[in-house]
Amino acid sequence: MRVLVTGASGFIGRWALRPLKQQGFEVHTAGRRPPPEGSAVDVFHTTDLLDATQVRALIAAARPTHILHCAWEVTHGRFWTARENLDWVAATLHLARAFAAHDGRRFVGLGTCVEYDWSDGGKAARRESDPLRPATLYGHAKAGTAAILQSFFGEQQIEFAWARLFHLFGPAENPNRLVASIARALIAGRRAECGSGHFVRDFMPVDSAGLALAVLVGNEFSGAVNVASGCGTTIEHVALTLGRLAGRPDLVALGVRSDAPGSPPSMIADIGRLRQMGFAGIGDLTPALAAALEFWRSHREPA
Amino acid sequence: MRVLVTGASGFIGRWALRPLKQQGFEVHTAGRRPPPEGSAVDVFHTTDLLDATQVRALIAAARPTHILHCAWEVTHGRFWTARENLDWVAATLHLARAFAAHDGRRFVGLGTCVEYDWSDGGKAARRESDPLRPATLYGHAKAGTAAILQSFFGEQQIEFAWARLFHLFGPAENPNRLVASIARALIAGRRAECGSGHFVRDFMPVDSAGLALAVLVGNEFSGAVNVASGCGTTIEHVALTLGRLAGRPDLVALGVRSDAPGSPPSMIADIGRLRQMGFAGIGDLTPALAAALEFWRSHREPA
Repeated sequence: MRVLVTGASGFIGRWALRPLKQQGFEVHTAGRRPPPEGSAVDVFHTTDLLDATQVRALIAAARPTHILHCAWEVTHGRFWTARENLDWVAATLHLARAFAAHDGRRFVGLGTCVEYDWSDGGKAARRESDPLRPATLYGHAKAGTAAILQSFFGEQQIEFAWARLFHLFGPAENPNRLVASIARALIAGRRAECGSGHFVRDFMPVDSAGLALAVLVGNEFSGAVNVASGCGTTIEHVALTLGRLAGRPDLVALGVRSDAPGSPPSMIADIGRLRQMGFAGIGDLTPALAAALEFWRSHREPA
Repeated sequence: MRVLVTGASGFIGRWALRPLKQQGFEVHTAGRRPPPEGSAVDVFHTTDLLDATQVRALIAAARPTHILHCAWEVTHGRFWTARENLDWVAATLHLARAFAAHDGRRFVGLGTCVEYDWSDGGKAARRESDPLRPATLYGHAKAGTAAILQSFFGEQQIEFAWARLFHLFGPAENPNRLVASIARALIAGRRAECGSGHFVRDFMPVDSAGLALAVLVGNEFSGAVNVASGCGTTIEHVALTLGRLAGRPDLVALGVRSDAPGSPPSMIADIGRLRQMGFAGIGDLTPALAAALEFWRSHREPA
């Protein structure tokens, strides 16, 4: 059993490597940058995944039985509308084609909570069978890719699962994302400027998400699976918890920034399927928020 | 105004060329095969549209203001499930990317009636806003491409229209398609073996469809537009009309073959939008069926 992981040096993919290894997979990765020292990677293939010819050569050489495809355009602040979304749809389809041509068995891809229809403001937790209605190019690119792959792999009798990720946080995330930006401000002794804090989101530590992906590669679930905590937490709670953990609750400034217009008040996952995979759900975010804070403390910018 | 037409030597695309020229467009085409003598083509670019690098070079050289993208995998009998559907999704997205990077203004793509949800058997005529629910890889590939392009071109402020084609027929279609296979049998004096003939389809002569595409390139309609006759005709009626026109009604053998399982009894388009574009709707198919018959008479296989 050999798994090829793309995006393995990224925010999410890196957390799937060790559990995959522990499950008994031979772990191959592919991308432009080699994995960091000490990664649970058996073989690294230098590959430009956006080049169809290189992708075909990669699959012919690596011959994976399983693929965990994490690579995508995810530059913070621009991935929602980035033209590169189209390149990654194309690259993903080329990867799927090559995998089918070389007797691949199971493909797991990364979807997103923004595939769902949130136009009701997010009253109920979203189940995998709920209607999709993306509001962004990123959401359309992911949902379109999933629909095409589901049909394609069905024809090819290759197993296919699609992990819909909600709101992840953790070490080494983009410094401008919510948890990172608050943590960095607190550590630097700056005011952590937030919106109203009333929005409810389904936060999950990224290492838990990585483990869920590894389990999803190894099991036989097919179709979409929400990868999330199953709990709604206000942004206010996250910010105040970080403030308390950092010993500087006074620096948390709620209501200073305006909330993103059009953003749904609540985005929570139903994690019935993830529970069936053996996940209990993440109750208390405090330890993971403390770890994120510790990460930024040890990666503090020069004053 | 310069239009680039892909798939211009195919069954459908060829019929858009002259009307585009008559509308005042400079007509460029691209593909592996040059257009036939006498085509209304100003410039032909030899290009493998499945090669992203060649597509970028094509757009950089041709610099079209408009694109009519007809090229796709359409081999009769296998395009529904063909792996090549994924290649054409990728190729279409690369074409769109390159077009946006070179100041393209309007992109028209080809969709299909099988994007719609026909699980009710097709009771009512389908409007463009009706729910989609493809049952085939081909349908998913087209619907997914349209959703991604709609969002992408919206971001890029490039006009985008998507022609959902229903059941076309006409000269030079694949000899195994319905009208062609009946016409060929009749001309050869063989029995034309049909299913029950009870299925109702929305038949449109391909030259009318080509004209509609050309008009759609030139106007400002955006989003999906059904390209169809707006009328339901039984397959029985088509077969018997061909039999009568050929002077051999005795050769039409209805109920000899089994009907395709799972195929909806009725598939008809609502053509309100097409009417707004100036199309009256095709009432009588007889002249176009006579023309198809004439085509196969002059392309009769050696006995």
